[in-house]
Amino acid sequence: MKIDGKPTRTIWVEGDGDAVGIIDQTQLPHRFVTTRVATLEEAAHAIKSMQVRGAPLIGAAAAYGMWLALKADASDEALERAYAVLHATRPTAINLKWALDEVMAVVRNRPRAERAAAALKRANEIAEEDVAINQGIGRNGLKLIEGIAARKKNGERVNVLTHCNAGWLATVDWGTATAPIYMAHDKGLPIHVFADETRPRNQGASLTAWELNKHGVPHTVIPDNTGGHLMQHGMVDLVIVGTDRVTAQGDVCNKIGTYLKALAARDNNVPFYVALPSPTIDFTVSDGVAEIPIEQRGPEEVAMMTGKTKDGRIETVQIVPDGSDVANYAFDVTPARLVTGLITERGVLKAERAALKAAFPERA
Amino acid sequence: MKIDGKPTRTIWVEGDGDAVGIIDQTQLPHRFVTTRVATLEEAAHAIKSMQVRGAPLIGAAAAYGMWLALKADASDEALERAYAVLHATRPTAINLKWALDEVMAVVRNRPRAERAAAALKRANEIAEEDVAINQGIGRNGLKLIEGIAARKKNGERVNVLTHCNAGWLATVDWGTATAPIYMAHDKGLPIHVFADETRPRNQGASLTAWELNKHGVPHTVIPDNTGGHLMQHGMVDLVIVGTDRVTAQGDVCNKIGTYLKALAARDNNVPFYVALPSPTIDFTVSDGVAEIPIEQRGPEEVAMMTGKTKDGRIETVQIVPDGSDVANYAFDVTPARLVTGLITERGVLKAERAALKAAFPERA
Repeated sequence: MKIDGKPTRTIWVEGDGDAVGIIDQTQLPHRFVTTRVATLEEAAHAIKSMQVRGAPLIGAAAAYGMWLALKADASDEALERAYAVLHATRPTAINLKWALDEVMAVVRNRPRAERAAAALKRANEIAEEDVAINQGIGRNGLKLIEGIAARKKNGERVNVLTHCNAGWLATVDWGTATAPIYMAHDKGLPIHVFADETRPRNQGASLTAWELNKHGVPHTVIPDNTGGHLMQHGMVDLVIVGTDRVTAQGDVCNKIGTYLKALAARDNNVPFYVALPSPTIDFTVSDGVAEIPIEQRGPEEVAMMTGKTKDGRIETVQIVPDGSDVANYAFDVTPARLVTGLITERGVLKAERAALKAAFPERA
Repeated sequence: MKIDGKPTRTIWVEGDGDAVGIIDQTQLPHRFVTTRVATLEEAAHAIKSMQVRGAPLIGAAAAYGMWLALKADASDEALERAYAVLHATRPTAINLKWALDEVMAVVRNRPRAERAAAALKRANEIAEEDVAINQGIGRNGLKLIEGIAARKKNGERVNVLTHCNAGWLATVDWGTATAPIYMAHDKGLPIHVFADETRPRNQGASLTAWELNKHGVPHTVIPDNTGGHLMQHGMVDLVIVGTDRVTAQGDVCNKIGTYLKALAARDNNVPFYVALPSPTIDFTVSDGVAEIPIEQRGPEEVAMMTGKTKDGRIETVQIVPDGSDVANYAFDVTPARLVTGLITERGVLKAERAALKAAFPERA
């Protein structure tokens, strides 16, 4: 999407063809810094330190990391090592392993002289495939927004509430939950986004707000506590969130707090949509609440907060008193009964086993 | 309640009988500072700067402020001026005006020589009345906790979730939502509290966590997003929150985000209680969602965060990017249908018009 008018992706091949460029997302939202990633080690560092984050972007970055490794040394040993080093950066990221396997498959049986070029080609394809999927999500979600806009009087704005960052910063471009929003905005529809702050890591306040702002989409950052009040008062037309995993029966695992917004949406008859690339559907799991283990992360994410001081320094402060325990569950599960629809690249589906099976007969 | 074993109130007459002492709550949770308040100006400053906060404590502090003013100058002019100065500190605080009127009523027709003593006597009574009401709430709420504890096996702990700070720091002692918790703890029941952080002002993380910690009550600070997940997994036995206003039909206006927890409680069959001193009931209002105007506060409360740096300084950092709009609704309304019961000093009442009328026939 655009940064101050200039079309930008989260990862790209540099002009000299010798490295990739990334946005260092650890510096956002207060500093926009791009970084040149020229070696396997730099690629691994970028993923591990979360300079790049978001499942689709991690996948693309890992694929490019394989290219960078093979460019320096195309031996079998270097190939194995690159796979191992990159895989170890975020061991639970499914997309990362998938992308590494994809590159491995195209280079393994190739002469050494051709390996780097083949890896680069597949990495570029992985990036383009992500963009195409998100555009598909965008087109399907756009119809929902257009339907709401058509029912509004006097060109009133359509208000979307979103949670966390399922934006273009988490993908190569467009994002998942944000793709319909950017398409609506680019088409001239009067759209406005309420961005949940998303404690404890504040991805909404720091990333979603930043990318909407840079692209020029009107938006308002709200504490996570606020969405219910807004829905009670007719100030939200629809909710669109992303997801980390959707089960075969349509339960949605996403950033902690998503479930509370789904409850408020149901209580106020606000449609609650989940945008996802179809690989996010896990047909091996049914009951999300019972079956999906929820990751607990470090207490410092809750107890500490990082921001910009008056004089422009980046500082971290402690906001929980010494001696208090802290719990930090990273995700929750929204039961399918609270989900109005799943916006995928193959259409907007009911959050039901039969609908998912019908849309993805090759997988279900 | 206790601070590291020492019984403490939020406001007291100093040993020399010449001033009151307060906890400077703006310094919490990272610094425990008590302040001597000896003049009208100091009392007004303490209220205005939120060194003392919470409706019952503001009322008591204002009453003592009248005493301090009359001690220096007992003339009619000084009396009128003290009333005006204190009233202007937090003009929307109902308790403040009530306490000022109470003191005014007992001093107005008295000789000047007796005015200060009469004001002090009424201020002391106001403080003791608050303590007595909270003890009543505590005794009634304790029965609910004892009932849950009796059904637990092997002395498993009772898990209470609370939102914001309806603790002793907001009152003279005991608190409202916390009174049953402190009584259960002091009685030896194994009680544990999940304290919602309560963005944007973080009263849960900074005040509730601090006071529970100092009294020795086991507790865990959680992001506001977490409660739904905990309830889905049976980790919360009951919710107890405070309130700023309860309507004649039992709707509950409380800190923003309360409604979301009430929805999660209902979805998971977790009892949802509201603790309140009966003056909080406003029989002039019925439909809380439709009739109660919700205060919007400054964006800096959302955009900025204050905490302690590694080297012990108190620092404020900006966490929302430049250029993003921010909304800051201070309260929301939980419809009566989601409330299991109202814990008052006269018993645990159904959140229904008839029950409130029957319990408070003199007011309804």
